[in-house]
Amino acid sequence: MGPVYLDHNATTPLAPAVWAAMQPYFERWYGNPSSRHEFGRMARSAVDEAREKVADAVGAHPSQVIFTSGGTEANNLALKGTAACLLPSQLLVSAIEHPCVAQPARELQAQGWHLRRLAVTDAGEVDRADLEEALRQPTGLVSVMLANNETGVRQNVAALSELARCGGALVHTDAVQALGKIEVDFRALGVDLMTLSAHKIYGPKGVGALIADKAVELKPLLSGGGHERGLRAGTENVPAIVGFGAACEAVYHLLAQSESALRDRLETGLRVLGAVIFGAAAERLANTSFFAFPAIDGETLVMALDRAGFAVASGSACSSDSAEPSAVLLAMGVAPGLAKGAVRVSLGAGNTPEQIDGFLATLQQELRRLRTYQAVIG
Amino acid sequence: MGPVYLDHNATTPLAPAVWAAMQPYFERWYGNPSSRHEFGRMARSAVDEAREKVADAVGAHPSQVIFTSGGTEANNLALKGTAACLLPSQLLVSAIEHPCVAQPARELQAQGWHLRRLAVTDAGEVDRADLEEALRQPTGLVSVMLANNETGVRQNVAALSELARCGGALVHTDAVQALGKIEVDFRALGVDLMTLSAHKIYGPKGVGALIADKAVELKPLLSGGGHERGLRAGTENVPAIVGFGAACEAVYHLLAQSESALRDRLETGLRVLGAVIFGAAAERLANTSFFAFPAIDGETLVMALDRAGFAVASGSACSSDSAEPSAVLLAMGVAPGLAKGAVRVSLGAGNTPEQIDGFLATLQQELRRLRTYQAVIG
Repeated sequence: MGPVYLDHNATTPLAPAVWAAMQPYFERWYGNPSSRHEFGRMARSAVDEAREKVADAVGAHPSQVIFTSGGTEANNLALKGTAACLLPSQLLVSAIEHPCVAQPARELQAQGWHLRRLAVTDAGEVDRADLEEALRQPTGLVSVMLANNETGVRQNVAALSELARCGGALVHTDAVQALGKIEVDFRALGVDLMTLSAHKIYGPKGVGALIADKAVELKPLLSGGGHERGLRAGTENVPAIVGFGAACEAVYHLLAQSESALRDRLETGLRVLGAVIFGAAAERLANTSFFAFPAIDGETLVMALDRAGFAVASGSACSSDSAEPSAVLLAMGVAPGLAKGAVRVSLGAGNTPEQIDGFLATLQQELRRLRTYQAVIG
Repeated sequence: MGPVYLDHNATTPLAPAVWAAMQPYFERWYGNPSSRHEFGRMARSAVDEAREKVADAVGAHPSQVIFTSGGTEANNLALKGTAACLLPSQLLVSAIEHPCVAQPARELQAQGWHLRRLAVTDAGEVDRADLEEALRQPTGLVSVMLANNETGVRQNVAALSELARCGGALVHTDAVQALGKIEVDFRALGVDLMTLSAHKIYGPKGVGALIADKAVELKPLLSGGGHERGLRAGTENVPAIVGFGAACEAVYHLLAQSESALRDRLETGLRVLGAVIFGAAAERLANTSFFAFPAIDGETLVMALDRAGFAVASGSACSSDSAEPSAVLLAMGVAPGLAKGAVRVSLGAGNTPEQIDGFLATLQQELRRLRTYQAVIG
């Protein structure tokens, strides 16, 4: 059997169709797409085909797809690559961005940009009024994620983008967690730049994309052989790009399989056990539940659940090396004590009602054990 | 049968042992190494184990290995990442570096660095006297590749590095083409930074490493979640990293299988057919032969050979989109007309004497056809 995987926002297993699509490019068509011979041409057409599939999944044109090594690189390119072509002005990022947006923003601040973090409401939504006020200052770039990795809260990027673009700013959205869970349309969102990642949609690790309007000037982070229209050098990771294409081809299939019924089943049980559910007042991704039990440490609970056969997260995977409470929850005004209790369940294609019931039963036991233990040592 | 692959400096097929090592991390252990649960811990230990194997293959310590998305990223990090921590001074790169060193060097020049390209001799070796003269100016960083991707010419990096470090400069070497073909020892070379890539040594595309002495200050190009000791953010590409480790584990096995006898067989035949062999007067990698036939266009010959079932290159794969003659050959003083005839054969583990004989016979036919055609249209 093995443990039950409930951490799909951290990463997902490969879909069988993705795996099948990738294998020939490991085993037989291993050429370098820059080579002119048959091995190279086979690799090149595979990359071109994948580029079309990625573009199709998000309503973009293939020429707008810049393949990267993943979401982190795409977010870094979006911020640093555009900033390098602009005179420093104001940079607006929401207070709940992933570290790979938040950290580049801090670096740009050190280079003379005026960084302002857009406030979020208690429900976890970016505060429109704060954006309106911020836009009174000349603003070069705005970055707001389409859905948050921890809470699953969705942002009204189309509306925020319209505001920001009226003010003349470029707009970027990190759509890594949204893709495959809600409809993502580059044109409809009205953004200039959008980040995608394969390994959150049952595709491989090591590949992502920045979707970029061709009017946006970008300076590459990785320069060299002129790959990706001169915007991202390096031999294309052909099998991973093919896998990304295959995963994108299945996006509509993923959207049809909403996890909302499972999540409701989970949250009904969580509330009975006394959980506080973060972001529940906002529109959320259907697969994500981020919660805490007062006076129970999230990290301890995650380890206990792991021993009992359930893989969940104590926060975003990227920050789980840190003992700090979630920056996302603090930005939402959650008390640090409660935030330290945060546990994230993120459901995926393979999860079943039986697994949810098993999870809830195990959670109840573990909570009882931890509370007894605390009562004894307290 | 399929075409005969003679382009191993562009990329290599996966070794069966590498492929076998990677598969479990696609199929079963798909966790994010930052996750605390069992899936995450399995991924983390696989990454740690691969880090040891990569370090072992080049005489480095595991803590000196920074995994990247490939050689291009590692070269960019080596140059831009160190330069960002230094005051601009002189930057020395050899005139025959790969574009992913040459182009970052140009960008640093635009940022105030004084860029000087080190001359090479007619044989393709970096001119030691030119380095000595250049080092009279205060120099921050020197980058000289260990072996050239086009000619296969080896550089005496240990000696050049000793000179440069006496002058107080940091030294970087791009060892991408050397690894697996000659012994590579980070400590013995006396460099501060060294670039490696997996897909040139029968490992997967999409992964490489920068080996960095811990005394070297580096600013990350990709920032975010603090991966790779804060020097390279992004979810680790676990299967690719595992494959890189497996490929590095086999490096000594690769070194024992020198292609020198095959290459001699090839070059004896090439000379009979009238080829000029570039870099033949220097110490070269045993698998590489870069040659031209006067008055025969290299690109045309490569296409003809491809149709006849032999995959060879007309220059480095990364520049084969360009019709310009090889910058490496021009730096060696080769006349542009002859340089445009350049064809590269790079041998690998699967090649046989029969394939070489077949290649030479086909080459003779194609040369005759091209010469007849030229005589008719000339």
